[in-house]
Amino acid sequence: MVLKRALYVGRFQPFHLGHLAALKHILSNHSEAIIAIGSAQHSHTIDNPFTLGERIEMIFMTLKYEKLYDRVIITSVPDVEKHYLWVDLVIQNSPEFNVVYSNEFLTRLLFMERNFEVRNIPFFDRDRYEATKIRQLMANDKDWVELVPKPVADYILSKKLDLRVKRIFNRNV
Amino acid sequence: MVLKRALYVGRFQPFHLGHLAALKHILSNHSEAIIAIGSAQHSHTIDNPFTLGERIEMIFMTLKYEKLYDRVIITSVPDVEKHYLWVDLVIQNSPEFNVVYSNEFLTRLLFMERNFEVRNIPFFDRDRYEATKIRQLMANDKDWVELVPKPVADYILSKKLDLRVKRIFNRNV
Amino acid sequence: MVLKRALYVGRFQPFHLGHLAALKHILSNHSEAIIAIGSAQHSHTIDNPFTLGERIEMIFMTLKYEKLYDRVIITSVPDVEKHYLWVDLVIQNSPEFNVVYSNEFLTRLLFMERNFEVRNIPFFDRDRYEATKIRQLMANDKDWVELVPKPVADYILSKKLDLRVKRIFNRNV
Amino acid sequence: MVLKRALYVGRFQPFHLGHLAALKHILSNHSEAIIAIGSAQHSHTIDNPFTLGERIEMIFMTLKYEKLYDRVIITSVPDVEKHYLWVDLVIQNSPEFNVVYSNEFLTRLLFMERNFEVRNIPFFDRDRYEATKIRQLMANDKDWVELVPKPVADYILSKKLDLRVKRIFNRNV
Amino acid sequence: MVLKRALYVGRFQPFHLGHLAALKHILSNHSEAIIAIGSAQHSHTIDNPFTLGERIEMIFMTLKYEKLYDRVIITSVPDVEKHYLWVDLVIQNSPEFNVVYSNEFLTRLLFMERNFEVRNIPFFDRDRYEATKIRQLMANDKDWVELVPKPVADYILSKKLDLRVKRIFNRNV
Amino acid sequence: MVLKRALYVGRFQPFHLGHLAALKHILSNHSEAIIAIGSAQHSHTIDNPFTLGERIEMIFMTLKYEKLYDRVIITSVPDVEKHYLWVDLVIQNSPEFNVVYSNEFLTRLLFMERNFEVRNIPFFDRDRYEATKIRQLMANDKDWVELVPKPVADYILSKKLDLRVKRIFNRNV
Repeated sequence: MVLKRALYVGRFQPFHLGHLAALKHILSNHSEAIIAIGSAQHSHTIDNPFTLGERIEMIFMTLKYEKLYDRVIITSVPDVEKHYLWVDLVIQNSPEFNVVYSNEFLTRLLFMERNFEVRNIPFFDRDRYEATKIRQLMANDKDWVELVPKPVADYILSKKLDLRVKRIFNRNV
Repeated sequence: MVLKRALYVGRFQPFHLGHLAALKHILSNHSEAIIAIGSAQHSHTIDNPFTLGERIEMIFMTLKYEKLYDRVIITSVPDVEKHYLWVDLVIQNSPEFNVVYSNEFLTRLLFMERNFEVRNIPFFDRDRYEATKIRQLMANDKDWVELVPKPVADYILSKKLDLRVKRIFNRNV
Repeated sequence: MVLKRALYVGRFQPFHLGHLAALKHILSNHSEAIIAIGSAQHSHTIDNPFTLGERIEMIFMTLKYEKLYDRVIITSVPDVEKHYLWVDLVIQNSPEFNVVYSNEFLTRLLFMERNFEVRNIPFFDRDRYEATKIRQLMANDKDWVELVPKPVADYILSKKLDLRVKRIFNRNV
Repeated sequence: MVLKRALYVGRFQPFHLGHLAALKHILSNHSEAIIAIGSAQHSHTIDNPFTLGERIEMIFMTLKYEKLYDRVIITSVPDVEKHYLWVDLVIQNSPEFNVVYSNEFLTRLLFMERNFEVRNIPFFDRDRYEATKIRQLMANDKDWVELVPKPVADYILSKKLDLRVKRIFNRNV
Repeated sequence: MVLKRALYVGRFQPFHLGHLAALKHILSNHSEAIIAIGSAQHSHTIDNPFTLGERIEMIFMTLKYEKLYDRVIITSVPDVEKHYLWVDLVIQNSPEFNVVYSNEFLTRLLFMERNFEVRNIPFFDRDRYEATKIRQLMANDKDWVELVPKPVADYILSKKLDLRVKRIFNRNV
Repeated sequence: MVLKRALYVGRFQPFHLGHLAALKHILSNHSEAIIAIGSAQHSHTIDNPFTLGERIEMIFMTLKYEKLYDRVIITSVPDVEKHYLWVDLVIQNSPEFNVVYSNEFLTRLLFMERNFEVRNIPFFDRDRYEATKIRQLMANDKDWVELVPKPVADYILSKKLDLRVKRIFNRNV
């Protein structure tokens, strides 16, 4: 744990067990991690069904369940049209950090051009744990519950957010 | 602790011991609290010297120091020109809540018009613990350190953010 | 006519006889209707050739021609990136209403999540009266005049707006 | 009635009998008038307590009461930071017009620079009929009812919007 | 050289020898030209890899190299959602002009509707000098240097901006 | 002339002989200068009467008159609510630079926090050459012509922009 704080950027639609494994991997190398929820302004679309507040709630509940709350800070960043400014927006909205974890191309490019150290996130059984796939399972009434942390599943089911995902995929309500 | 989650709205420029006392008061009545950092877009002004990221960092460090991290969720909300939409923006950016704590007039009015329960925050020695006054003390090189939680003082001093406040007040750099 | 006021959301590019039939259907069930012109900010594109002002003028002229002016209020709403806030924007921009008429999926989903009663609009000979098709007829110099209310046809012809549609489709000017 | 359509720009916070007299004056010179509700985005402030939707409702109800609905079109325009573009925004959001009525300096300057004919609105007993004064009367529980059209008074009272004005003035809720 | 000033609108991603030939053509008909850099807010995408500042620098260096600086003014215009307002935004951001040169459909349509004289730009060996093709050559490590003015090539190579283009095309960094 | 390029930030409402002297001072120390026109979005106010395009035209005409066009690049930057991002916006909109000249407090603070070298601009007979004062002279029909470069005076007089300033000050048109 040489480096102090790492930034972990994602959309977390929803936060699944692959994300949790990545977070634990990051925390094995850093004393603290910042989860920066990207595309913060979006919701109610196929790619971004959940609001920012819903995503914060799901992640916080998972941190609580996993007792990681004392080492993880949650923040958020909207997409912006001016890509050049996006890195600065992340910095404005986040506690200080010195390493960036992301597999997303544009995030990596923009941070590298600003001389940040950027690292890949190792995938954890990506065939299973992939948000796009999980949303499709929800839409098709197939089993997705075991692919997300228990508090995430409980939250989605109690709020019937899987029904929202289904409606968005079918464009029918 | 009948009610589940309370929203505590403030600007936290900076988070001081009065805010901490208010938070503890709220947590004595609710199992969890959401700290919603308002005026999120502002920084480098007399009223809002600290960035959102700096404020998140100061609050998180205090929650850690006070071991309140498992009961407090941090979120943020910018000021918006369309006041009517502000409540909805808070809802979009926050986990679910059912009571709002605020002494700020417009926050109270807007939430009451939407039929939320709105409660006053009891002040804790407001003569001492008041953010405007603490910023003035910083600007005048007077003692402010004992008015904020220890992690906040440490953070401001280590980043020399008190120097920024002084520069902004003097309009001189 | 039990319910007082209904909201009728559409883009009205342009307002055609199918829209007029829908409006009359709504007015048979409600004492007043609000026509909310959506995608208000757009113009000069294949899907949205007419400006907001042009659409307001065409609808007002039709209301006048049909003597419906005392029961129909026109308002407008831009598309917004934050879908969650769109319903609130409609509410801010509109007189009070208690039923929403729309066949558009996202409009329906967003209003239903806020517990509004949402109703389908019965289609009136949709093979003929469909805005996309009418814009294509304009672009191809085929007959579209009889598919819209007389004041709409007069307006489009007098302003040569059918020429604009043709130019936009051909991307040639 | 030589000229066809006149634009009447105002904030209408609220629409009072002076506004109605001005509208009738305009309609004596023009066959139709457009009421452009300015500062459309604002509400819940001392100068702009009512939302756009509330203002549209009050004006429409008055037009209905006065049987002016067939000659008056309601539209709206937000304030914009880029003053140079404001005239174009009015044009985009409005049916065609050829004369502008306004006593507001910046509105007059901007339209005159674009070569529009701009006319003053004669005041009608301005000592009595002035929106700022009417809002102060509401705030101080004094009689304002006779200064606005009957449908406006009915609407404000039924929605208790005078209470909102009072709360905003007293900054107390 | 009857007409005084011409507006030349483009994205200049990057400014190439075809653009330079077009500029010289315009300057043979007009005493001065305004280069309006469009899509000013975009960068780091396949179609718009370079920032506004980078594009200004490349164009200024070319003007200097060609000794055209005393007859060419550089300005910039972002894309805007409200197409109707785009012409006005160009006017606000530009010195006065009376002819518009563009081959881009929407630019031509919008300026023609505002009664500007709009002219086509003759293409100069468009098979060779086309920005899309030049970006593809960069991405594929093929020779692009001779297709742009020498100062543009020098700038791109010294800043390794061709590497950025390659990374964006390959979505790999 | 050790350092290559300097950034000179101002509002230039209008560009006067003090600005020109400052520019020449900067060019005595640097081979090139960037004039960054701030508050780019504003016009038609007491502090910012001229549009961006008008300011670009006045500055370009002066550069031409002074034969400084080969060493000075003009760019523009709007004010933004998020002060933290302003420096990045300047960088996005400007060719590369390594020193910043400004006497404006916030500009200086924000660039210093990003580790730029920031220098004061020596004032040149500030009692005479001060934009606020020049605008007041215009408003009061007093002599201002000799305080600005000849091309600026010619431009303002030919466009009657001094009349606009007078109208804005008197709030009367």
